Amino acid sequence: MSATPRIGILGAGGRMGRTLIQAVQQAGYQLAAAVERPESSLIGADAGELAGIGAVGIKVVGSLEEVLKDVDVVIDFTAPAATENNLKLCREAGVAMVIGTTGFSDEQKQVLNESATQTPVVYAANYSVGVNVSIKLLELAAKVFGDTVDIEIIEAHHRHKVDAPSGTALMMGEAVADTLGRDLKKVAVYGREGHTGPRERETIGFETIRGGDIVGEHTVMFIGEGERVEVTHKATSRMNFASGAVRAAAWVVGKDAKKYDMKDVLGLNDIQA
Amino acid sequence: MSATPRIGILGAGGRMGRTLIQAVQQAGYQLAAAVERPESSLIGADAGELAGIGAVGIKVVGSLEEVLKDVDVVIDFTAPAATENNLKLCREAGVAMVIGTTGFSDEQKQVLNESATQTPVVYAANYSVGVNVSIKLLELAAKVFGDTVDIEIIEAHHRHKVDAPSGTALMMGEAVADTLGRDLKKVAVYGREGHTGPRERETIGFETIRGGDIVGEHTVMFIGEGERVEVTHKATSRMNFASGAVRAAAWVVGKDAKKYDMKDVLGLNDIQA
Amino acid sequence: MSATPRIGILGAGGRMGRTLIQAVQQAGYQLAAAVERPESSLIGADAGELAGIGAVGIKVVGSLEEVLKDVDVVIDFTAPAATENNLKLCREAGVAMVIGTTGFSDEQKQVLNESATQTPVVYAANYSVGVNVSIKLLELAAKVFGDTVDIEIIEAHHRHKVDAPSGTALMMGEAVADTLGRDLKKVAVYGREGHTGPRERETIGFETIRGGDIVGEHTVMFIGEGERVEVTHKATSRMNFASGAVRAAAWVVGKDAKKYDMKDVLGLNDIQA
Amino acid sequence: MSATPRIGILGAGGRMGRTLIQAVQQAGYQLAAAVERPESSLIGADAGELAGIGAVGIKVVGSLEEVLKDVDVVIDFTAPAATENNLKLCREAGVAMVIGTTGFSDEQKQVLNESATQTPVVYAANYSVGVNVSIKLLELAAKVFGDTVDIEIIEAHHRHKVDAPSGTALMMGEAVADTLGRDLKKVAVYGREGHTGPRERETIGFETIRGGDIVGEHTVMFIGEGERVEVTHKATSRMNFASGAVRAAAWVVGKDAKKYDMKDVLGLNDIQA
Repeated sequence: MSATPRIGILGAGGRMGRTLIQAVQQAGYQLAAAVERPESSLIGADAGELAGIGAVGIKVVGSLEEVLKDVDVVIDFTAPAATENNLKLCREAGVAMVIGTTGFSDEQKQVLNESATQTPVVYAANYSVGVNVSIKLLELAAKVFGDTVDIEIIEAHHRHKVDAPSGTALMMGEAVADTLGRDLKKVAVYGREGHTGPRERETIGFETIRGGDIVGEHTVMFIGEGERVEVTHKATSRMNFASGAVRAAAWVVGKDAKKYDMKDVLGLNDIQA
Repeated sequence: MSATPRIGILGAGGRMGRTLIQAVQQAGYQLAAAVERPESSLIGADAGELAGIGAVGIKVVGSLEEVLKDVDVVIDFTAPAATENNLKLCREAGVAMVIGTTGFSDEQKQVLNESATQTPVVYAANYSVGVNVSIKLLELAAKVFGDTVDIEIIEAHHRHKVDAPSGTALMMGEAVADTLGRDLKKVAVYGREGHTGPRERETIGFETIRGGDIVGEHTVMFIGEGERVEVTHKATSRMNFASGAVRAAAWVVGKDAKKYDMKDVLGLNDIQA
Repeated sequence: MSATPRIGILGAGGRMGRTLIQAVQQAGYQLAAAVERPESSLIGADAGELAGIGAVGIKVVGSLEEVLKDVDVVIDFTAPAATENNLKLCREAGVAMVIGTTGFSDEQKQVLNESATQTPVVYAANYSVGVNVSIKLLELAAKVFGDTVDIEIIEAHHRHKVDAPSGTALMMGEAVADTLGRDLKKVAVYGREGHTGPRERETIGFETIRGGDIVGEHTVMFIGEGERVEVTHKATSRMNFASGAVRAAAWVVGKDAKKYDMKDVLGLNDIQA
Repeated sequence: MSATPRIGILGAGGRMGRTLIQAVQQAGYQLAAAVERPESSLIGADAGELAGIGAVGIKVVGSLEEVLKDVDVVIDFTAPAATENNLKLCREAGVAMVIGTTGFSDEQKQVLNESATQTPVVYAANYSVGVNVSIKLLELAAKVFGDTVDIEIIEAHHRHKVDAPSGTALMMGEAVADTLGRDLKKVAVYGREGHTGPRERETIGFETIRGGDIVGEHTVMFIGEGERVEVTHKATSRMNFASGAVRAAAWVVGKDAKKYDMKDVLGLNDIQA
């Protein structure tokens, strides 16, 4: 492992790409390359200036091949077809990858799995360190409280989100339900209106707020008599995911060729709640 | 008006009655009488000791007649039949009343209205000063924000509550909808699940939390781009209503015979949003 | 252990005593005795009526001796001298105790320790289940986040509280600082005013809110880039401590003679963060 | 006034400039020009692509003169010397300005005031609509609650902020203190530690949280017995200020030559609390 990992950012001109460039700088690591589509008007711009952090001396280039020799690891939050191609290039060059792209076909997932036998790859559903920690806290709280409390999950997202509750809210609900031996499908309540009758203990309530450009907030309440405990996660920007991805990039350099997730990166599998 | 109003508490042995006794003391007023049903085991107990604030030298008595001459105003959070009787006694004696009893029949409401022509009576749907202030704040915020924000109303109550959303949440929703010229019945959303599509601006979302012994919490969010304003009311005990009722009692002594509500007590009708 | 423990409440006429009576009922256990000082005006009153939950058929009596044979365990939130005497009586009778009294002299602590060699005694600094769970969550979160986040502790209590921060806030701060290998005395910051300079990572900020009759709220924030995790405990009434004490009472009946705390009752010592 | 104001963004390549470009699009207005320093590597890039919203057909140019004829109003969040020059150009061309630049010298302020006699200029300390609304709400709440509650102001900002409390928190404190006839300098409390004694009613507490990249959160609590009202403003991105500035830009086109602030833009001067 190099003392300071040389990190390349793919899709450097997109919003997530720019945020990743900021995250690399904030974590004190070295930005080693920035790649964008060859037809972008941003090719040749300074990657730091593009990201709004001042010039860093790295120009945006139009292909990954140009910079493979300059990097130990690349972070790829782009599109399935691009990531598929990047996987093949990195596999051959022995460059590690952190992948945040979503929407892979089964074939593309197969490429990912095969590549991970030749170079280390982190591939996580959610790169937020805070979300991963929160879920561990929820499991622990649910275990100690058992059936002595009422559990409610409140989440808020921006007005453009088209489904409810959020995937993260459901993930939290499942973590709690699993710990308590309940079937989330049977105990979930998604709204209350009119004559509802008194609350039943085994239910898990979801309250979904939609508005403005809220990035993502989740609170799980464990409500007893005279007290309650709340575990809250608030994401305020893409930096949330970007800094987790950068933490993963620094962690994965020098690891064995294998597919990893954020629980591996954070060592959460070693904690017994 | 007497400088320190002499206040009597009816239903003094119930939970609300005890809280009213505490509220009288906290406001620095004089507890002048405490009345309970004649068959109660608490008759003769010191009213302060009963309320957990130490002896105050006022014994609980079994009938209002005994103490009518000792009071300027009584606070009555009891039951419709009892309040009906108390209204008749106070009317004759010229004693002011603050009434928090609910569930009157039309006949009993008629008795209340008639009594209010002979002695001043405060009769409010909600004695919380904070709730009344909050609604004024909501009207003002809605007026300035207009249609530039998304509005969501989150409320939480105890597990025993059998309906949703709370009356206070609906009152808040109506205040906002009226200000914006919307029909709450048409724009209210009571739950979100599955594929909801993007949020529509004119909707007003209600999210209802139920659990434990939560007394009552309401938050209204005005959510824009990059910011939001929230107005929150949290009731943490009956003291919420009790201190509003005591404020009303001190206010109503010496007023003209008439029926008043909390907007009168708080002077909220004079504020133009 | 009796299937339904027979629980006695000492200091039954005080605010905490009444809350304990409510908590016994809410937990579905049997109130077996209620004791108050012999000179109280409440002797002979029905304990349930006194607690505002309706008659339960148990009269308040003026001495513990009268009822020792009727109980398996007593809950004692009274005063040091009274508790000292109660300890001696329970030790001889083999009755278990849950003690929430504070302010013992060294001699009285000695009596407690000796009694615990003959009958099981739970003696905890804080009977709140939620506070004890929260501290475990904080240790876990601090361990995973390490030095990647800023930590702030916000607490709120009523206007009559004369010291700051609260004992619970300091306990939370110590749990976090210990986990991170920091010395709380060196890193605690209790206020910020004027030119403070940028925040230093190792500091732990305390923000103390005082107002009204807030029972007790604590939030610990772990603040990273683009996200934060918050663990919040809100106590809304004495029921908080009362229900924890009742849980302890049910747990301790039939245990070996020994001094226990809430970590024993909740099994928190078995969880490895 | 043109039906759809033609808006130019100065400092278009900076973080605030890019956010302003997004805000113009979100508000449904027309981006008419984007200006950056002539030596920037971003000259010639598509302004929309630069802002991460996709190409909009407007290239970034190196001087304001080039585009003066294309705009009705420009938004200028740059630096004092640049704004001074922009003021002179807009004055001559009769282009309205919305200015968010800070740190003017007295001479530069003089230039601003003179320019505002020839072209309309909005110049506000804080462009957030939410902050301006919140202050109005606080004045109203303070007026009705009077001295019956305890008031506390909690604010949170990022770890790089070097002073405390924030200017906005102090502005809120002054709004409340003025309404209540108190002198903020005398009643402000900035931290609590050790033996503080009970809270005094007339004090106003400030609690300052610092951590991560929190953009800016303010909560003012009005805490009574058994209840509290909270007014909260949360800024989650520069979009907060950007959308307020765009609202001001649309409002100011066609107005008389004069210096305006956000209270004018929002009509807050017409509301009598």
